[in-house]
Amino acid sequence: MIVSDAPATAVAAFTTNRVKAAPVVLGQERLRGGRVQAVLVNSGNANAYTGADGLAVAREMTALAAARLGIADARLVVPSSTGRIGVQVPRAKLRRGVRAAVAQLSPDGFHDALDGIMTTDAFPKFGVRQAPARRTAGHGRRAGEGAGMIAPHMATLLVYILTDAHVSRPALRRMLMDALPRSFNAIVVDGDMSTNDTVLLLANGAAGNRLLTPRSRQFGAFAAVIAELMRAVARMVVTDGEGATRVIDVVVRGARTPADAARVADAIARSPLCKTAFYGGDPYAGRVVCAAGYSGARFDPARLDVHLDDVQIVRRGVEVVRAVERRANRVAAKPAFTLTLDLHAGRARAERMVSDLTVDYVRFNSDYRT
Amino acid sequence: MIVSDAPATAVAAFTTNRVKAAPVVLGQERLRGGRVQAVLVNSGNANAYTGADGLAVAREMTALAAARLGIADARLVVPSSTGRIGVQVPRAKLRRGVRAAVAQLSPDGFHDALDGIMTTDAFPKFGVRQAPARRTAGHGRRAGEGAGMIAPHMATLLVYILTDAHVSRPALRRMLMDALPRSFNAIVVDGDMSTNDTVLLLANGAAGNRLLTPRSRQFGAFAAVIAELMRAVARMVVTDGEGATRVIDVVVRGARTPADAARVADAIARSPLCKTAFYGGDPYAGRVVCAAGYSGARFDPARLDVHLDDVQIVRRGVEVVRAVERRANRVAAKPAFTLTLDLHAGRARAERMVSDLTVDYVRFNSDYRT
Repeated sequence: MIVSDAPATAVAAFTTNRVKAAPVVLGQERLRGGRVQAVLVNSGNANAYTGADGLAVAREMTALAAARLGIADARLVVPSSTGRIGVQVPRAKLRRGVRAAVAQLSPDGFHDALDGIMTTDAFPKFGVRQAPARRTAGHGRRAGEGAGMIAPHMATLLVYILTDAHVSRPALRRMLMDALPRSFNAIVVDGDMSTNDTVLLLANGAAGNRLLTPRSRQFGAFAAVIAELMRAVARMVVTDGEGATRVIDVVVRGARTPADAARVADAIARSPLCKTAFYGGDPYAGRVVCAAGYSGARFDPARLDVHLDDVQIVRRGVEVVRAVERRANRVAAKPAFTLTLDLHAGRARAERMVSDLTVDYVRFNSDYRT
Repeated sequence: MIVSDAPATAVAAFTTNRVKAAPVVLGQERLRGGRVQAVLVNSGNANAYTGADGLAVAREMTALAAARLGIADARLVVPSSTGRIGVQVPRAKLRRGVRAAVAQLSPDGFHDALDGIMTTDAFPKFGVRQAPARRTAGHGRRAGEGAGMIAPHMATLLVYILTDAHVSRPALRRMLMDALPRSFNAIVVDGDMSTNDTVLLLANGAAGNRLLTPRSRQFGAFAAVIAELMRAVARMVVTDGEGATRVIDVVVRGARTPADAARVADAIARSPLCKTAFYGGDPYAGRVVCAAGYSGARFDPARLDVHLDDVQIVRRGVEVVRAVERRANRVAAKPAFTLTLDLHAGRARAERMVSDLTVDYVRFNSDYRT
């Protein structure tokens, strides 16, 4: 449970999956008010595909939390769930959990809350940054659960970004929306998208700074800190991808349009052939070129350049990996490297942070039943 | 090498990958003429991503074949290649191969040709059918190479459908285009698409039947035989998918539009989570519902029905797998079963034949370097 002394200004991004978990449906409704004072998170049951009953439980639990916390309006409480889907939430158990969480609330409980939302994560994901704001320094704090596309039944990307800065809602919204394409929307473990994904950004103004708006002089610097924080935590999520042994930064540049850049980056990020080549440490240019080719993006294959870090493996459409084989192999064997494609078709760009597809990924997801 | 005594009426479908192999570029050019007398296939080198040199080699080899075969116009010869991509074709070796193939031509050489185009295939894929045509019976014969999305470097779906019936080009085109969506365009091993995929349909008229046109009384029956043959061979390709242990027929019905039906079917067919669940023999409805949800298709999740063969595991949006667990487990453990989703949003339908994602798939594709 995350509780603010006063209602915080809030913005959020939720899963675009048509099948939305009950807490997402309720969260979307409540975010319309623009204020959130408490977030109630449970793991073990995603409350997804649970129909009207699931929604009723979510409402009931936030009402109980509000009552126990002395928050007058239950609409200031937002729920999040992660865990099994298609199973009704055990009401009594959750009720006990809400009471216990309220009883254990503490100003120093940040890491306990972080532990509480972990499911199949190998490590907790969080970061703390200082960001500049006029008069006094607000700071951003953030707890992220690296489930999401990683532990896909237990399975959700639940991200909470907290700041005590005083920030207007339009400013918060712009920070979040600007940072998403290069952070949580830029990560691909297996390309599946959960029913529960939630990114919530709360600013409660306790720092007492002058209101930060999109026109404030510090807006850019503050937004940059939030963006960097989101990106850092998103990278932790990929690093902790199921069975992952490498993190590859896929950079596509020189595309005609941002959509074309994204098509190429996503095709590579999702291609089982590229992802198994990453796993094998194989600088196999052909698979990458092939995926770019079927991505739907418009470009001239005869102008394509491909680099592994600073080693060029395709030059103007001709594979040259054999000439640089030793250096290319060395890059491909690293736990992290950058794969850059230049389409020479325009100026648009896209980036993805991608994990490899491994034997352990298949083992885990074929053995694991929720 | 496949040679007809006389030029055959020809239609073809090629890969839509933007990166097209030289033989595909040349094949597309030559198919404009509508007549093909010989097909020249090599394996070991895909002649893809080989630039102007690759195209020159492809032209040269078809010219050599034409000269050796006594075909006056080299434009009646179509090349196909499968194998490594991004490597220049060894000219001298290919030249020797063309001469050897011509020398070994024989009316009984069907299975030798089939062996010749196999790469990583575990078994040859072919079928023979009789189809009705007026006056005399033409018959369809077909050799398929199950590489394609299966052995993706060595790697191409090369399909040749041969009939001695006398068929008009519009009739051939309609047969091919009508049959593709439920055969070679409906199979998903890993979702990657080769630079060389080719499906060629040749009718040389040696059977002497009256010309079959789209208006002929036997058109429907003849087309049905071709369609059934294509579907049967496409299924062999999935069965021989790398590391595959199961073939799943994914059927989506009740979609608003054919595009929506295809979106849902493709999302499931490509989802690593669904495909590892298939491997694990796990009737996990949640992953399937989740993939349908993020597919982009419009439907109401609360109306969704899901069946494994005849066992209903989701009813009107509620997972009921626990009530039928033993029966559902039994179906999911079979080497082949049908997964049916009814979206109850319209009347459109799509089907995919899908292999599972296995530990052996990852092993093979991470160890294997071309």
